[in-house]
Formats: sequence, C-alpha cells, structure tokens
Amino acid sequence: MATPILILGLFALICPLAFPSYASTLQDFCVANPNSQGLMSGLACKDPMMVGANDFFFSGLHLQGNTSNPLGSKVTPVNVAQAPGLLTLGISAVRIDYAPWGLNPPHTHPRASEILTVIEGTLYVGFVTSNPENRLITKTLQKGDVFVFPVNLIHFQYNVGPTNAIAIAALNSENPGVITIANALFGSNLPISSDVLAKAFQVDKMVVEDIQNKF
Amino acid sequence: MATPILILGLFALICPLAFPSYASTLQDFCVANPNSQGLMSGLACKDPMMVGANDFFFSGLHLQGNTSNPLGSKVTPVNVAQAPGLLTLGISAVRIDYAPWGLNPPHTHPRASEILTVIEGTLYVGFVTSNPENRLITKTLQKGDVFVFPVNLIHFQYNVGPTNAIAIAALNSENPGVITIANALFGSNLPISSDVLAKAFQVDKMVVEDIQNKF
Amino acid sequence: MATPILILGLFALICPLAFPSYASTLQDFCVANPNSQGLMSGLACKDPMMVGANDFFFSGLHLQGNTSNPLGSKVTPVNVAQAPGLLTLGISAVRIDYAPWGLNPPHTHPRASEILTVIEGTLYVGFVTSNPENRLITKTLQKGDVFVFPVNLIHFQYNVGPTNAIAIAALNSENPGVITIANALFGSNLPISSDVLAKAFQVDKMVVEDIQNKF
Amino acid sequence: MATPILILGLFALICPLAFPSYASTLQDFCVANPNSQGLMSGLACKDPMMVGANDFFFSGLHLQGNTSNPLGSKVTPVNVAQAPGLLTLGISAVRIDYAPWGLNPPHTHPRASEILTVIEGTLYVGFVTSNPENRLITKTLQKGDVFVFPVNLIHFQYNVGPTNAIAIAALNSENPGVITIANALFGSNLPISSDVLAKAFQVDKMVVEDIQNKF
Amino acid sequence: MATPILILGLFALICPLAFPSYASTLQDFCVANPNSQGLMSGLACKDPMMVGANDFFFSGLHLQGNTSNPLGSKVTPVNVAQAPGLLTLGISAVRIDYAPWGLNPPHTHPRASEILTVIEGTLYVGFVTSNPENRLITKTLQKGDVFVFPVNLIHFQYNVGPTNAIAIAALNSENPGVITIANALFGSNLPISSDVLAKAFQVDKMVVEDIQNKF
Amino acid sequence: MATPILILGLFALICPLAFPSYASTLQDFCVANPNSQGLMSGLACKDPMMVGANDFFFSGLHLQGNTSNPLGSKVTPVNVAQAPGLLTLGISAVRIDYAPWGLNPPHTHPRASEILTVIEGTLYVGFVTSNPENRLITKTLQKGDVFVFPVNLIHFQYNVGPTNAIAIAALNSENPGVITIANALFGSNLPISSDVLAKAFQVDKMVVEDIQNKF
Repeated sequence: MATPILILGLFALICPLAFPSYASTLQDFCVANPNSQGLMSGLACKDPMMVGANDFFFSGLHLQGNTSNPLGSKVTPVNVAQAPGLLTLGISAVRIDYAPWGLNPPHTHPRASEILTVIEGTLYVGFVTSNPENRLITKTLQKGDVFVFPVNLIHFQYNVGPTNAIAIAALNSENPGVITIANALFGSNLPISSDVLAKAFQVDKMVVEDIQNKF
Repeated sequence: MATPILILGLFALICPLAFPSYASTLQDFCVANPNSQGLMSGLACKDPMMVGANDFFFSGLHLQGNTSNPLGSKVTPVNVAQAPGLLTLGISAVRIDYAPWGLNPPHTHPRASEILTVIEGTLYVGFVTSNPENRLITKTLQKGDVFVFPVNLIHFQYNVGPTNAIAIAALNSENPGVITIANALFGSNLPISSDVLAKAFQVDKMVVEDIQNKF
Repeated sequence: MATPILILGLFALICPLAFPSYASTLQDFCVANPNSQGLMSGLACKDPMMVGANDFFFSGLHLQGNTSNPLGSKVTPVNVAQAPGLLTLGISAVRIDYAPWGLNPPHTHPRASEILTVIEGTLYVGFVTSNPENRLITKTLQKGDVFVFPVNLIHFQYNVGPTNAIAIAALNSENPGVITIANALFGSNLPISSDVLAKAFQVDKMVVEDIQNKF
Repeated sequence: MATPILILGLFALICPLAFPSYASTLQDFCVANPNSQGLMSGLACKDPMMVGANDFFFSGLHLQGNTSNPLGSKVTPVNVAQAPGLLTLGISAVRIDYAPWGLNPPHTHPRASEILTVIEGTLYVGFVTSNPENRLITKTLQKGDVFVFPVNLIHFQYNVGPTNAIAIAALNSENPGVITIANALFGSNLPISSDVLAKAFQVDKMVVEDIQNKF
Repeated sequence: MATPILILGLFALICPLAFPSYASTLQDFCVANPNSQGLMSGLACKDPMMVGANDFFFSGLHLQGNTSNPLGSKVTPVNVAQAPGLLTLGISAVRIDYAPWGLNPPHTHPRASEILTVIEGTLYVGFVTSNPENRLITKTLQKGDVFVFPVNLIHFQYNVGPTNAIAIAALNSENPGVITIANALFGSNLPISSDVLAKAFQVDKMVVEDIQNKF
Repeated sequence: MATPILILGLFALICPLAFPSYASTLQDFCVANPNSQGLMSGLACKDPMMVGANDFFFSGLHLQGNTSNPLGSKVTPVNVAQAPGLLTLGISAVRIDYAPWGLNPPHTHPRASEILTVIEGTLYVGFVTSNPENRLITKTLQKGDVFVFPVNLIHFQYNVGPTNAIAIAALNSENPGVITIANALFGSNLPISSDVLAKAFQVDKMVVEDIQNKF
C-alpha cells in the first residue's frame, strides 16, 4: 500500500505546487494534502484540525546516503515532498554525502539560496558570478565551516579529502529545484541539437555527441 | 583594533538592515559593507569587485556553545552579522547547544520559519497555533530527526535526555530576529506595568513583580 | 438556515485561506466563494459576474462590543471572514471596545502591522522590541490620537480612564491572525509541559499550574 | 524653526521613499530619519536607540477637516510623512470630512487597497472594475458601515445627506499615493494635448479646453 | 468545437486567475489548464508532463490590427489567455497598431509597468505623475525608440504622423489589465451618477450626459 | 566628457542596484541617480522634480547589432543602465540580432522570465526543465511568432535560416542578468578546477582544458 509520503511524492511530482510561500502571510501554515487527487483536486491545504506533528517532521538525516554512483555524492532532501508542513513556509533542508573525491557537480537552484555546514571532511566549494565578470569565488571548507551560495548562481562542492564528507544545507524554498548543468545540456529529453552545443562550447560535434552518449 | 566582524556587528546593531532580501532580485548578491559609517553611510553594498569568499564564510559551527546559564542552552548564529554576503539572500543558520534539561525557551522569530535537525541527543519540541485554537503541536526528536517551526508561532526545544544535545537549524531570513516571550514581557526596558501583566495572566501583582525581578 | 456569512465563517475556519494577497497582482479582486465545499473545493474565487457590493461591505461597526469578560475588552473584526471581497487585498479593520480598566492583553499579529485610532477615551498602549534590547515603547493616547504597532511585535492597549474607550484599527492583511501570549503559553490545547514554562519564567511549577488552571 | 515633522514632510516630498515595505522583513521597524539631507543623504533609518513613541504617533484625527473648497471634502492623512515609524510597515490611515453634498472625486491609489468606515453621515460610494466590463459596484453607507476599495480601481465617495459626514479609512501602504483623475487628465502640468483629450472623451476640443481652464 | 484557446479565454474571463506570479518561486512554470471547469475546478496548473511548446507560443504578432474604430488604434495582446504558459511568470506582450492620428487613449494598467518599442511611425506619448504634482512627462518617439510607462500611472500614445504606426510593448504581469479612463468614468455599467461626474470635472450635468451617451 | 549614460553604466557596474523593484510600491517611480558617487553615495533616486522624459527613453533599437563574433549573435539591452527610469519598475527589453546560423547560446537569466517576438527570420528556440525530467521544450519560430522562456531555466535561440534574424524580447526585471553557461563553466575568472569539470561532464581532463583554452 502506498504510504501518505509516497502519495505526496507522487502528488508533488505530477502536481506542481501552485501555492506560493507567500501564502504563509494568510495563515499559520498550509500543510500539503496527500489526498488531493492530482491535477483535478481542490485546495492543497489539509484541514488544520487534522494536522499533526508528523506533518512537520522527517526522520533519517543521520543516515549515510549511498554514494555508489559516477559522481560519488548523494543528496537526501527534506522538502515539501518529505515534510508536507513546509508548504508555504519557504524553507527546506538537505544532507549531502560525498565519497572520497566525490563531487556535487555544477548546478543551480532556480528558486533558492543555500547555506551549507560541513559536518565531516574537507570540501572545495565555489560559485561563479553572472556575466560579464564570471568570477569564481572558492573556499576549502573544514568541519564546522559554513558557506553561502547565492540564488541562481552555478555552484559545486568537491570532496578533496581521502575520507567521506558530510554536509547539511538549507535552502529558502520548500521546493528549491535543481538544474544539474551537465544533465540539462547534454542529457535532456529530447537532446539539444548538437549544432547548438558544438557552437556554444566551441568544440567539434563529435565531442558533443560523446558527452551526450554518457548522459 | 576592531575587526571587520566586530564593526559589522556594530553596524548591524545600530543600523537596521534596510535592504530587503528582495534586493537579490536585482543583482547576484549584495555583501554588507562593514565600512558603512552607520546611519549616515551610503549604500550598504560592498563593491562587488572587492567581494571575496570570506564574505560568504563562517568558521566554528563545530564548537560547543557555553550552556552555563539558567536556561542551559546557547544559540550560535550565522546570520548577516557573521557572514555579510547573506545580505539580501533571505537565509541564515544557527547551532543550538543544550545542557541536560536545557531549554531554548518559548520564543518567536518575527521574520522567519525554521527547520531544525538534531545532531546529538533527544529534544522535546513544540509550537502553538494562533487564536482561537492555540493547539500545541509537539514531538520528541532523536538524532537525525528534522522538525519545522512555522513563521511567527511561539515554539521551544527542551533537552529531555541526561546528555548534551546539539541541533543545527536554518531560518529563511538573513536577520530573523528573536523575541523571547518571558524576557519581552517580564524583562523589558522599561518594565510593562504590572497592572497589565497581572490582568493578562490573571495572577496577583506580587507574582508579576516576583517574575519581573528575575529578569 | 446558515447564512452565507456563517458558511464563509466555517469555510475560513476549516479551510485556511491559501490564496495570498499577492494574487491581487493578477486580477482586480478575488472574492472568497462561500459555497466552496471546504477542503475539497475548487478555486476560492467567486465568479466576478456574481460579485456585488455586499461582498465588499460590512455593517455594524458603530455598535458597542460586549466587554463583560475578565479582560474587559472586545474586538469586533472586519476581515475576510466578514467581507469576502477582502481576499487578496491585504487589509482589514477592527473595532475594539474597552470597559473602564479594560485590557487588550499582550498579543502579536503574525501577519500584519496595525494602525489604531482612538475614537473615545484614554488608552495606555505599548509594544516591545525584539532581543536583545526588548525596549518598551509606550504612549498614553487620547481621542483622535493614532498609534502604530509594527508587525509581529508584542503589544497591548489598556484603558486607564474611568469611562469606556473605543478604538478603530486597521491591519495590513485580510487575515492577520492573533496570538494572545497568555493563552498560547498557559491555555494551549494540550498544555505545554509545566517544566518548560517553569524554567522559562523562572518560577515554581506550582505557579505555572495555578496560571494554567485559569485558562 | 522647522520641526522634525516638517522636515520629514519635505524629505518625503522631494525624496521618494526608496525603502520598500518589504524591508520590514529585515528588522522590527525602520523609522524614517528626518535629518536625512534629502537626495544626497544616507540610510533613511533612524538609529533604533533614538526611536521613541512619538515616531509611531499622530495627534488630531478627531479634528474636523476644512471642506471649504469646490469639492466640499478634505482628506487628513496619517502616512509616513506624519508618522515616520510607518516606514516599511505597509499601512497608513486617513480621516475624510465631507460637507453636505461634498465629493471625494474619482481617484485611484496606485499603491494600496482601502477599507473605509463611516463615522457620521450617509455616503454613496463606488468603484469601477477594469476593461472590458467596467462594472460599477456601489452602495449607500450609513454610520458604522464598512466598505472596501480594491487596489488601483477608480473609486469615489459622495455625501448624499444634508449634514456633514466623516469617514476613517486605512490603506495598505505607508505612502499609498493618490491620482485624482480629473486633475491628472485636465489639470496636469504641462497640459495634455487637447487633441488627445478630445478624441479620448469624444468631445469637441472647446469642451476640453473649458474643463482644462477650471483646473 | 471550441478550441483550447477559446476555452482558456472563457476560463480567464469567468475565473479570475487566482495563482499569483510568485507561484513561479515554487516550480519551473505553471501552465494554465484549459480544462479547468471554471469556478469549481481544481488546480489551475496543467500536468507538467502534458505541457508542450505550444503552451509557451503565440503566432501572429506580425499581422496588422484592425484600426477601423473611433480611436483609430488596436491592441493585440499576448497574455495568459493567449499563451497559458505565462501563468505565474509575470510578463506579457502586446502589439499596438495606430491609424494616422490614431490614439491609444489615457489608461492605466493596474498590475504592470510597460516598456514600448516603436517599430514604425511617429508617436507622441506621455504619462502623468500622481498628486499633487500631476506632472506630464512626454516625448515624441521615432522608429527604434523605447519608452517606459511606470505602473499605475495614466498614460497614452498618439500617432502624430500621416502614416500607420506600430509598437511592440511588454508588461510585467501575465494579466496586466487595462482601465481606459474615459470608459470607466463615462461608460461604466451601470453609469456613475452624473452629479458625481459633473462635480468632479466641474462641468454642467448636460455635458456629462452628452459624454455618457457616446460610451 | 563622460555622458550621464556612461556614468550610470559605471554606477551600475560597480554599485549593485540595491533598491528592489518592490520599491515601486512606495512611489510613482525612482529614477537612478547618475551622480551617485558609487559605493559611498546616498539614495539612488534622482530628485523627482529633475526627472524628465529622457530618463524613461532609449533610442536605437532599430539599428542592427554587430554579429561579427564566433557565435554570430548580438544582444542590445535596454535595462536600467540605459534607461534609469526603469529602476524599481521590474521590466526591461533587448534587441537580438542573429547572423545566418548565429546562436544565442544556452544561458539563464537569474532574475527574469523572457517573452520574445521574432521580427525577421527563422529561429529554433528551446528551454530545458529542471531535474529530474530535464525535458527539452522546443519550437521553430517564424516572423510574428512569440515564445516564452520561464525564469531561471536554461534556454537558447538558433538562427536556422540563411538570412539575418531579429528578435525583440522583454524581461521582467530592470537588471535581469545573464549567465552564459559555457562562459561561466569554462571561462570563469579564475578557472574552475579541471578535475571538477572533467568529473561533471564525464570527459577527460584534456577535453576540459581544450575547451577552457577557447574561453
């Protein structure tokens, strides 16, 4: 049987969350309603009398994420799909695990700034400012260090130590979104024309197609 | 010599941050300028060419806070006063330490919701909804548990275990503010008339004055 | 038969108003639909062709509120539950009556600033700033005086004259909410642990329980 | 000697208030600084330690406005120019006096919705919705009646009784602005070409020039 | 058979768009759902998996609008009713055609600023600032000139050349709205009392009624 | 002698515009002050009495941009640096010229959605949705076609015809910003570690360094 969390996950997937964070200016909170029947449902708020502590709760952020993948990193999110009470509140959290030399690759959050705290390990992190400067701002972080990634700028974290690393980060949206640059450009469904990518990156089309084949 | 951080702290203290988070809709970021001469200063943004990684950085969140106080708790903030690059970004973080039976007492954040992750220990946490229901929503949290406190609602965390507890929390404002209810009501400068407090709490004025004397 | 106002009241009660004031950036107005069937209803906007003047209207703010209660005050609201046309407009009004020595006790509005005009009588009013200053800002107001309470700060009004007092106030939300501090702390449903309250107010648990028994 | 209030009035006049209401998301309040030297001044926030109750205060809304003018109405405002503490708080108030048959003529507030309470007298009020419907929504109000004018819609109040009328209204901006339609169209400085106005109102240019001569 | 565009048009007409632009802070986009059954429908977002390029597309802005009307101008809009993908994105466009001496008469957009580019011809354009200055800001524009009309201010464009003129303009709302001043005042349904209009414009009631008869 | 426009350009460059669009909720407009002395200047608003039509004006959007560059495209902006009256108004415009096979390469606007109208030629355009779908939404546009690019999503336009193409686009920010993906990743100052880029794109470091050498 699908649990409420799973149904909500589905809901979040097929039903873009149409109620903005600003709705929190109109009520104490608005808990996402897992029984909303997708696109034809009604208000996405659960009856406040049926709301309980579990709507504001998530368990498991002490557990190590599985980093057995080409990038060697794993993001465990706690956003509105995991904690429905976050709807309209404009905040969420993630745990990020990094294998040795693991990379959280260049990406943007289209709807949030991020503040990251290193729990274990050593991370080389950075972000790039917009045109025309495209300045790279970088720092190597140790346990207890905190770093900020401004909204919409391309950023990354790279585990430069020989041991696992762990970070906890927060983002100021309950559904911040992620655009992994390499995937969006070279792994989109359908693919972007290789003419476009070859010209944009000033490489041969064969190089583009090689990269596309890996995504 | 005053360090930049100290100057900024002073700046933040005497010069309420007048540039809203929404300013981030107009630039990549706006780093608070520690050399702004208080109230008669100019724009609070540092020259972006002078901005560096340290503006987005804070060190020390792995260090235990000093909980030797009557409440047995200590909040270590990382907001715009510590990391000037947070200005306009709408997010900040804190570490909270709790001695055994330590209490982060009932308070509100006038400008932020909060998402809290337990790093160590066991916390009994809760918040109360607005009138007329005033429902108490509570949960006992263990390591790895996450809980959400909606903006402006009165909330608290209480260490119900015999060992120290640690939490890391994030708030969706770079200057979320805190109103500790007991201090604001019974320890304000100047004191609220004991007639008002006695009537509000339906107690004898002597009880009010006893409490006021402790704050 | 339930009147539309009553149905809307119910609607407002069980269905937190999920459409923010900012929706007024998308249409002339959005009148709350009293026939929305609670949580499973559709859009909360009434057909604009069915909208009439009564949606923007409330009658009775010249009538004295009943102040026969322990606090000696009574708030008569005109918010979105009374005037459905206020939905999305970000404003509402109240009349407050005060018996001699009547108190509108310390409270916050989690979603609005307030501007208050004294129509009759003499009021001692105040608000307290946030930590660490907790400054009390007070004034004794006469007929025709206006005072401002900033959003989310604890504030009160106290009738210090021997006659009835009347105020009209406005708040910049159509559903500003109220958190009466004493009720939220000592009268919540379920009660906050007396351990927490005793430690927060630095009083004996018996004092806490005495206060809780009155709420 | 100019009083601080007068200086602030001047300040407000020549220096458009550049700090938005949303700034209240970054501090308890931001009181307008009367000593800011106009356009070349610094931050418009007064040192919070210098802030006092008078910054949030205005006296005189019980006094009758002078309605000896062609329209027979007078608006007495309490906005940020009168109460500097309103800066960033997003609310203000007005008293409106109407002589018998006095008119507050068709106008818009470019930055606020309005909620109006009749204190004395009988008012015929209305607003017109946007294109293409241009529906007129009207009501005749008595003492104690409340009416709402949605943001940016053209509205008016007309005293249809033989006695003076009084209203108190609030607007959800500390500087809501007013555009009196007749003045903006026929009394602008410099005048709009009479060709434009004649074509827009489908009247002879002589009619336009007659009206322009009166403004 | 009604096309989706037509249904959406109807939807937009009877169902004020209740989802604010700020919703774009919660998802990539929210395409208006043409099958939403008016007021009793569910969420106004189309299933993102069903979204296609046509939702973000409009064809025909190269076609001349029909200016055979008393004003000699025609606005062809591309807002959320024409391109449902604009929902929540806060932008739209129009093409405006002007016959020789054609006028886009004085009007306001209650929810948007406008930036206009002249494609062909010569336009005398202007806007009027709010009270008390009511300054007229005007310019005569040629091909390739760009002009800005600030939100909510009364503005107009007048073709002062002997040939057709064309402009393309954009507005920062997906449903900016239009209030044509002359129509709202003299052509409303029902009419505004001629007493009100005569007093407001300081003209004889017969002049008012003459104008009303033309609208 | 530096022209005001040039000074403003410098101002815009070194002084991130700290006054958000929301400031337009507090005044009719706020024209950027070209004489503000950079970071130590005062309020960025020009005295409204000194404001004139030229503050809201730009000339030259009928002129062809120079596309003699490797990408074969040229963007001519009209934002707050060119038209200072746009400050706080939340809108701007661009003309884009494309040589045959010219490309406006994959990029994001960190602060705006975009609506584009084809004036001449044939453009293949597209954007990619966020993780995990990364759907490519594309369309081939002809003269008179309009297309929408949602805020923060990666998008591009490619001239697939043998002739020049021209588009006019608008963005809902007066300073929307641009992040050209290839430049930010491979041409940043200083460069991103080739380890990071090689792992992110799953290519050999030599491929990364080849690309970096071209930027």
